Order: sequence, then structure tokens, then C-alpha cells
Amino acid sequence: MLWLGGRGQGPAGEELVTDYPMISPEEALRIVLEHTTVLGTETVGLGEALDRVLGEEVTAAEDVPPFPASAKDGFAVIASDTSTWRRLIGERIPGVSAGVVVQPGTAVRIMTGAPLPEGADAVAMVEHTKETEGRVGLLRRVQPGQDVRPVGQDLAAGDHVLGTGATLGAAEIGLLATVGRARVRVYRRPRVAVLTTGDEVVEVDEPLRAGLIRDSNGPALRAAASYAGAEVVWSGHARDEKGELRLLMAEALQEAHVLLTSGGVSMGRRDLVKPLLEETGKVRFGRVAQKPGKPLTFATVGEKLVFGLPGFPVSSLVCFELYVRPALRKMGGHTRLQRPRMQVTLAHPIHHQADRPEFQRAVVSERQGVYWAETTGLQVSGRLRSLIGANGLLVLPAGRAHFSQGDLVTAILLDRLEVEGVARE
Amino acid sequence: MLWLGGRGQGPAGEELVTDYPMISPEEALRIVLEHTTVLGTETVGLGEALDRVLGEEVTAAEDVPPFPASAKDGFAVIASDTSTWRRLIGERIPGVSAGVVVQPGTAVRIMTGAPLPEGADAVAMVEHTKETEGRVGLLRRVQPGQDVRPVGQDLAAGDHVLGTGATLGAAEIGLLATVGRARVRVYRRPRVAVLTTGDEVVEVDEPLRAGLIRDSNGPALRAAASYAGAEVVWSGHARDEKGELRLLMAEALQEAHVLLTSGGVSMGRRDLVKPLLEETGKVRFGRVAQKPGKPLTFATVGEKLVFGLPGFPVSSLVCFELYVRPALRKMGGHTRLQRPRMQVTLAHPIHHQADRPEFQRAVVSERQGVYWAETTGLQVSGRLRSLIGANGLLVLPAGRAHFSQGDLVTAILLDRLEVEGVARE
Repeated sequence: MLWLGGRGQGPAGEELVTDYPMISPEEALRIVLEHTTVLGTETVGLGEALDRVLGEEVTAAEDVPPFPASAKDGFAVIASDTSTWRRLIGERIPGVSAGVVVQPGTAVRIMTGAPLPEGADAVAMVEHTKETEGRVGLLRRVQPGQDVRPVGQDLAAGDHVLGTGATLGAAEIGLLATVGRARVRVYRRPRVAVLTTGDEVVEVDEPLRAGLIRDSNGPALRAAASYAGAEVVWSGHARDEKGELRLLMAEALQEAHVLLTSGGVSMGRRDLVKPLLEETGKVRFGRVAQKPGKPLTFATVGEKLVFGLPGFPVSSLVCFELYVRPALRKMGGHTRLQRPRMQVTLAHPIHHQADRPEFQRAVVSERQGVYWAETTGLQVSGRLRSLIGANGLLVLPAGRAHFSQGDLVTAILLDRLEVEGVARE
Repeated sequence: MLWLGGRGQGPAGEELVTDYPMISPEEALRIVLEHTTVLGTETVGLGEALDRVLGEEVTAAEDVPPFPASAKDGFAVIASDTSTWRRLIGERIPGVSAGVVVQPGTAVRIMTGAPLPEGADAVAMVEHTKETEGRVGLLRRVQPGQDVRPVGQDLAAGDHVLGTGATLGAAEIGLLATVGRARVRVYRRPRVAVLTTGDEVVEVDEPLRAGLIRDSNGPALRAAASYAGAEVVWSGHARDEKGELRLLMAEALQEAHVLLTSGGVSMGRRDLVKPLLEETGKVRFGRVAQKPGKPLTFATVGEKLVFGLPGFPVSSLVCFELYVRPALRKMGGHTRLQRPRMQVTLAHPIHHQADRPEFQRAVVSERQGVYWAETTGLQVSGRLRSLIGANGLLVLPAGRAHFSQGDLVTAILLDRLEVEGVARE
């Protein structure tokens, strides 16, 4: 057989080769974020604020605590008082601020959280006292200020409490309640549409005739978008027919800020997504030097973003992680857009095709202070099981095909990293 | 002044001292989990399954892929064929399985995902071919099986796909869709009620009169319970009045599996939660040797669990982390109940009262492979700000008061650890 001669890896002038230049993953992310704008804010009640991103600067209007308060159950006293026994002249319960004045030789019973009575400067905790016949004896010396929470100990009026970009967890919500913020301004959540393409794809509950496969990208991408804080407002399935695809894309873009399509971005003649995006918007890139996810396509249609994700389940989820999630986070007001990266030690050798950077799925786990990475079996793009249990993506650079056991490589840490044993909950 | 003499730390016979023995945090968690039972399962659609815990064993009913499929856009050929040019005899598109048979000297145009035509055993990707006048030339040699996804490559019929206890993320949901599971059995979510106690506590949107503080525990605990996967079904506020407290506790326990109260568990005379729980259920412990959270109380009322959390905001959230979250996770079918722990290096010296173990709030961050811990400022129990930005709890053991910069201590890693820079998103 006569071979027709070799060819380089880069884009070449062959008529069947796509016109889109192959760009690096770094360049792809830069382009995505350059075209992504931060959404506006909205005001929500504290009960709906969990996991939202704060969209305002919050300062304390008052001191917290607003009065000197007892930190313990016990007796409010004067620390410098030298009396052995002190006469009990009253009781201080939380919520009541009027009352007696403590003088040398006297004490006031006080509960945790109650305002310190006038005259007192310390609290003797009940465990360190002895009470008998209207008198209390101190078993230990108290210092001035002991077990008293001074005014403004937590926050002074005017203090900065939380800032724009803070993700609101339980402690943040408690803190907002403390300073009297029943409603807060948070960033809007990006609205996402998910469009599956392909004649061969059937819904999960349809019968599987010969040559067909079930749509896993639709459910997986909807879940991934929700998990990234977006609201999935539309979803659909287009056959490989230009009119239908055009119609559904237009419908989706009316509802959503971001459209995710899966499939139809390869080099086949029925791959209609790229040409259609050229018609209706502007394709910003159409190929990325990476494995999986080389055909990843990114376009803008007016202000809206379209990610043409590859049809292979692993490719589409890995592209979601690398490009869609940072964009959704930017829209939603997060200041930290990317997953953290760390150096991990390979638990076994890896060979890969070194023609482009590869993102292999791996389990990163800590043993004796060393972070070991093990890949999750066969790394082909269709094999969704390679993502199950993975808490990291190993970044294997182009130009180096072989990695030995013990070599250090970069890992991108996915959600739910847990740094002990098998690292995922 | 004549001191009345010292006393040990342990429980003593003083009339004002609570009768509850002081138990260790480990013992407390053991008791909590011993009384926690796993809830049953329910069936939900895949669209509602995100972040739920699988309650069944899922196996593949069919091979995935169910037919040998092309992994690339290109041409289906016979690898051992030695023809230089091959005649194009047809096209294979995804979703269509009928068609021509490939024989030596011929090729079939094929799209990614399309079934391999009969006779063919490899795919030559389009980038490595040259097409002209109904013929295709291969620029590179192909191997048998090249760019073909064999039957069952992802899953063989009968393969175990996912098991009981798996948390369903995007990849898991995609995998369930792949094997045709439109509905899956998941564990029920625990139902939680949150009851704030205290005359001094006002709601977040009420005016703050002298001596009063705003309820931060209610909002924070509701958020924490939701974040831990529970459903908050009831919430309320009881004044320090036994009849009202009894009524509200009964109402809450009718709705919920788990009742969280905050406040009213100290040693003051108006601390009504413990006596009331003794009346209506069984108090399993009433003091834990820890800081913060010593007054933590745990009781069972029939099958229901009651956590009497301390009133201080930090104490209640730290107790939630250490005891409530593991119980909620166990009820909800999780197999891993506790947060991971790791050894971290102190970035500064720490002094603490060594009378009991202390859980100090810290930021753990990685620099050059070393995990450094810095505490989040003043560690008093009322200061909710000490939890803001914290991604770890340092476990400072009893019996050792001083830790130097560079010392190794154990940290419990809270949610959203990100192991780079300041570690939290």
C-alpha cells in the first residue's frame, strides 16, 4: 500500500479540516471570561439567601453585643470587692435591663446573656460559687471583666461585616441576622438552557432501538448547572435538522443567559451547531487543543453565551467544569472562578497521547501527608464511569507521553474534595 | 478575703451543679449515632435526584454502547485492507443501523456515534484522510479496532453501576440516564425543626430594645440543616416559660424527625430545656467536655431526636457540625458521616484553657505543600465572626495549654475546603 504522506498536528489547508484554529485551554478560558458579564443583583429574604453570593457591602449599624452581657450563669459582682460572702440583692435575666445596682458586699444572680447590672464589672460562674441563705460565696477570685462580654466585642457600630462576593453559608446568614439584615442584596443566578442534539439520542425513558443511545448529557448538564448555582429554565432535544435546531436554539436563548448544547460540533457533515452559530451569532472559538473536548465551540449571540459541548458524556462534563462553570460563577458574582489546583503524586505510571494536553479523571487521596492520584480506569471520552468517584482532573501536558509512578503532576480539584482516605463523600 | 477553697473540674456534689456527667466528645458522638436510625427510601425522578443519596443497587440492563460505534467522524474501513484508495459506498449516520457492508477496497463515511457498518473493523478519522471523486485515501495506517467503541466498553449488561450510599452528582445522574433509569430510589431527607428559646431574643426584623439581642441561631441553624441535606419543616421561638416551651416542642416534634433548640441549656434557673426533656423523653447526655458547647444536651423522645444546642451562636454551629450533621447524614443514608481530619501546621502560637478539648475556628491554606492553619481572631463563643471564612476546626486537646508556631495539630475540615491560597470559595 502506498501511503499518501504524513501531516502535522496543527490546522492545515485540507478541505475537510475545520477552519477553526486550535487554541490552548488557557486561551479558551480567557475568551470565555472576556465575553461573560456579571449579572445584576436582587434582594432576597434571609431564608432564601443560603449559598447565594452577597451583592453589597454590609456594615454593623449597632454594637454587638449592644450592652455588657454575662457570658456565664452565675453572679454579677465587683471584682475588687474583698467580701467573703456577698448578699444577693436581685436577679438579672436576659431581656430585662432595669434593676438593682451592685455595691461592695452585694451580688446579683445573673444568667448567660443577661445585661450586667450597674456597678458590677465581673461575673463569677455558678460552678465556682457556693450559695446559702440569701448569700453567695466565691470559691475562686474573679478578675475585672471576667465572663463579661463587653459592648461591641463581636462587632462595633460601623464595622465591616461581609462584602460583595461572599458566599452565604450558615455562619454568614447568622451574622447578617445579628446585624438586623432580614433582607440582603445578592447576585442573580444565571439562567441556563440545555439542548441535546442528535437523531440517535432518545430520552431516558424511551425504548432503545438498534443504533440508538440514551441521552445522558441532558440530565447530567442540568444537574451540573444547578450544582454550580445556576437555574435551569429550559431544556430540549433537537434532531439533526437545521430548521428544528435553529428554532429550538432561538427559543432557548429567549429564556436563558447561557445555552449549553451537546453534540453536533464534530467534523461530520451533519454537525450543524457550528454553522448555525455562525449564522445567528459569532463563533469565538471552535476547537481547543485538549483531550477530551477538542471540538468545544463557544459563541456569543448578542449578550447571550452559547457553549457547543461535545456529544461524548465525559467530554461535555469536563468542558462544563473547565469553561462553563467559571462563566456561570462570574455571572453569579463569585470572585473566585476557577477550581484550585495542587501538585499530586502519581500512584501508577501513565502513558498518554502527547499531541495535546489531556485531562484525566482521578481520585486524589492523602496518605501520610502525600497526595496520591490514581486514574479512574479507561479514560475514553464516552466512558462516564471514569468520572464516578473522581475528585480531580490530572493535567497531563502536551509533549510528554510518559509519566512514572511517583511523578508530580498538576491536579484540578473538583467539588467535594475530602482530604482523607478516598477523598470523596 | 477568705477563699472558700478550690474544687476539681469534674462533676461534684454541689447543689447548684448539674447532675449530668461530663462526657468526652467521642462518647457524645457515639451516643448520638447509637440513637440515630437510617430513614427509609422514596422514588424520585432523575430531575430531582441531584445531591440525594442512592438507596438501591443499580446494575446495567444492557451493554453500553449497545452496538460497536464510531468514536470519530471519518470513514469505516477494514484495517487489514491494503488498498491505497477506497471507494465510498455509503454513509453511516447516528441513529441508523441498516446499510451497506464494507468490503476490501471500500469505505463508508461515518459520524461519531454511528453504528459501525458490517464488515468494517476500524475508523480512519477524517483529519487523517483525503477525499476526492467518490474515493477516500488514508494518510495514516489504521489498526483493527481503532476509533471504534466496542459493545459494552462503558458497561456490560449486568455490571454494577452505582450502589446504596452513593451521592448523586452530575456524572452519577448521567450514568443513571445512560442505563435507562428515569426514576431512582433515594433515601428520604431528614425533617428538621428549629426552636429558638429566650425572652431576650427578638427576630431579625424587630426593633432592638435595651437588653435584647437578635436571633441569629434560628436563621443559621435552618441554613446549616438545609446545607446538610435536611428539610426544615418547622421553626419557632419560645419565651422562657415552661408551658409555652412544652407546647412548641410538642408541635415541632410532630412535624420533624429532629428538633434543634438553641439556648436554655445552661445552669441558670430559667434554663428550662433539660428539665422539660427529662419530663417528655430521655436525656442521653447533658454536658460535654468541650469548648465551645459544654452545655450541649441530647435527648430522645420516642424515635425523635432532640439536640439542645447552647445559645451562643458559635457554640450552636460548632455543635451542629460535630453532632447534628453526622446524625442527619446517617438518617439520610450517607455512609460517611464525619468530616475528614488532617494534620496542619500552626502559623502562630496558640494558648488555650487546657481544662477541656477546644475546637478553634481556623483558615487552613496550602503553601508549598504545607497546610498552614491560622485561627480566625478572638475565639469567644458569642463571636460569630470567628466562623466567617473558617474552613477548619482545630482540635486542641485537654491537658496542653501552649502550642508553638510550627506545631502540628489536628484540624477537622469543614465544607468547601479549597486547598489553595485562602482555602475557601
